[in-house]
Amino acid sequence: MSGLKYRLSHQVKGYECDFQGEMTVPSLINLMIHVSGLQSDSIGNTEASMSEQGLSWVIVQYNIDIHQIPRRRDQITIETEAMSYNRFFTYRAFRAYDENEHLLVEVLSTFSVMNLETRKLVRVQKEMTEPYEADEIRSIIRQPKVIPITEENPKEQLFTVRYLDIDSNQHVNNSKYFDWLINTVDFNFLISHQIKRIQIKYEKEVGFGNMITSKMSTSSEIAEDGTRMTAHQIWNESTIACVANIFWKSRN
Amino acid sequence: MSGLKYRLSHQVKGYECDFQGEMTVPSLINLMIHVSGLQSDSIGNTEASMSEQGLSWVIVQYNIDIHQIPRRRDQITIETEAMSYNRFFTYRAFRAYDENEHLLVEVLSTFSVMNLETRKLVRVQKEMTEPYEADEIRSIIRQPKVIPITEENPKEQLFTVRYLDIDSNQHVNNSKYFDWLINTVDFNFLISHQIKRIQIKYEKEVGFGNMITSKMSTSSEIAEDGTRMTAHQIWNESTIACVANIFWKSRN
Repeated sequence: MSGLKYRLSHQVKGYECDFQGEMTVPSLINLMIHVSGLQSDSIGNTEASMSEQGLSWVIVQYNIDIHQIPRRRDQITIETEAMSYNRFFTYRAFRAYDENEHLLVEVLSTFSVMNLETRKLVRVQKEMTEPYEADEIRSIIRQPKVIPITEENPKEQLFTVRYLDIDSNQHVNNSKYFDWLINTVDFNFLISHQIKRIQIKYEKEVGFGNMITSKMSTSSEIAEDGTRMTAHQIWNESTIACVANIFWKSRN
Repeated sequence: MSGLKYRLSHQVKGYECDFQGEMTVPSLINLMIHVSGLQSDSIGNTEASMSEQGLSWVIVQYNIDIHQIPRRRDQITIETEAMSYNRFFTYRAFRAYDENEHLLVEVLSTFSVMNLETRKLVRVQKEMTEPYEADEIRSIIRQPKVIPITEENPKEQLFTVRYLDIDSNQHVNNSKYFDWLINTVDFNFLISHQIKRIQIKYEKEVGFGNMITSKMSTSSEIAEDGTRMTAHQIWNESTIACVANIFWKSRN
């Protein structure tokens, strides 16, 4: 499986990092999606030409593996590759490399196409994917299942969707969900752990002014290498909008 | 008055824009502060060398004039210039230009130096400012006074300081306040107006977990050109952390 690649060199900016100087997941995902947008522009598949047809690409799933998180002022390269597509989804890889081409972050993403008027997913059309030289496949690539919250009383945090959370698709941008996930975790846990892997699945879009409850539980199991898992649900009133697992390694 | 200048070319990214495709104020300010950081690095005045002395630059005031807001994919140039300094403050200009060197945005900023341990402002030392070739001045440059909220019952919005709001100074980054200001304004007002000018004054720093009340009132006066003013206060429990005025022009 392989398709067209596109690369962008980028210096990590201070405001893309948390207070410890490590690039945040929302910043990383924003940048990666920007690079796939540049690739689309470069082959004439602009966002504008999609929206003229009343359509937009939307993210339905990410599997993010962080081998080493980029730091403030690091010079990194973001690469994207259109991998394959079937009737419902397209699969795109993102990779971040350091200056010596060491792989820092790998992301496998699943995109779908949304009708901007009905807000429903529609079939992926051949002419949308052909320019990316991705392989047509019949199967659906199954990403690892998100493990649900098991606790009866998960930790909860409330958020209200803000004006500046809304993107050009007039819904909450996929990167904002990471804010809700991460900002629900205990401060002491956050400063003593680093994110190793995130599996996230978007179920329903969220709009301006919606009231969000971010729920989470922490697995009692600790792997041999010190990795712990947190399970997350993003609720939009009585509907689950998103589920996720985050795997954390201890800093010690 | 003039000092060392530094310039960076930048393509405006989709995630730096609101849903209407216009660059957001937090994105613009983040980028400008990044450019001043690059200037500091280029002359060896790194953030690290400041923090080794237990010190950090902090923003105390901005006066932002937006002639034309950059849009998604625009190629802009950000320029910064170290203007002048006195014993308490340094004055730095930021400008955004389009590809034809038309001035889009002008910012006059006032910086001060904070002792990271006592969290108090300290005197600006000559060796901090000399490399920037800024003029030493005796006077304090007075920026326009922020007009206070006059209404008895201002509009209020609550926010909680999130983990990802904290910067390397271990307080809320100055750009985050714009989120609190703008996200308090009515949706219908936001989509029918554009920001023309912002005057903002930071009074007290805000830390992780603090409970923020963003208060605002809208002036009943409408200028001949349709400009309206909103007055803002950011409260951290019973203390005012920040005051601001935003001048808006109607989109019609």
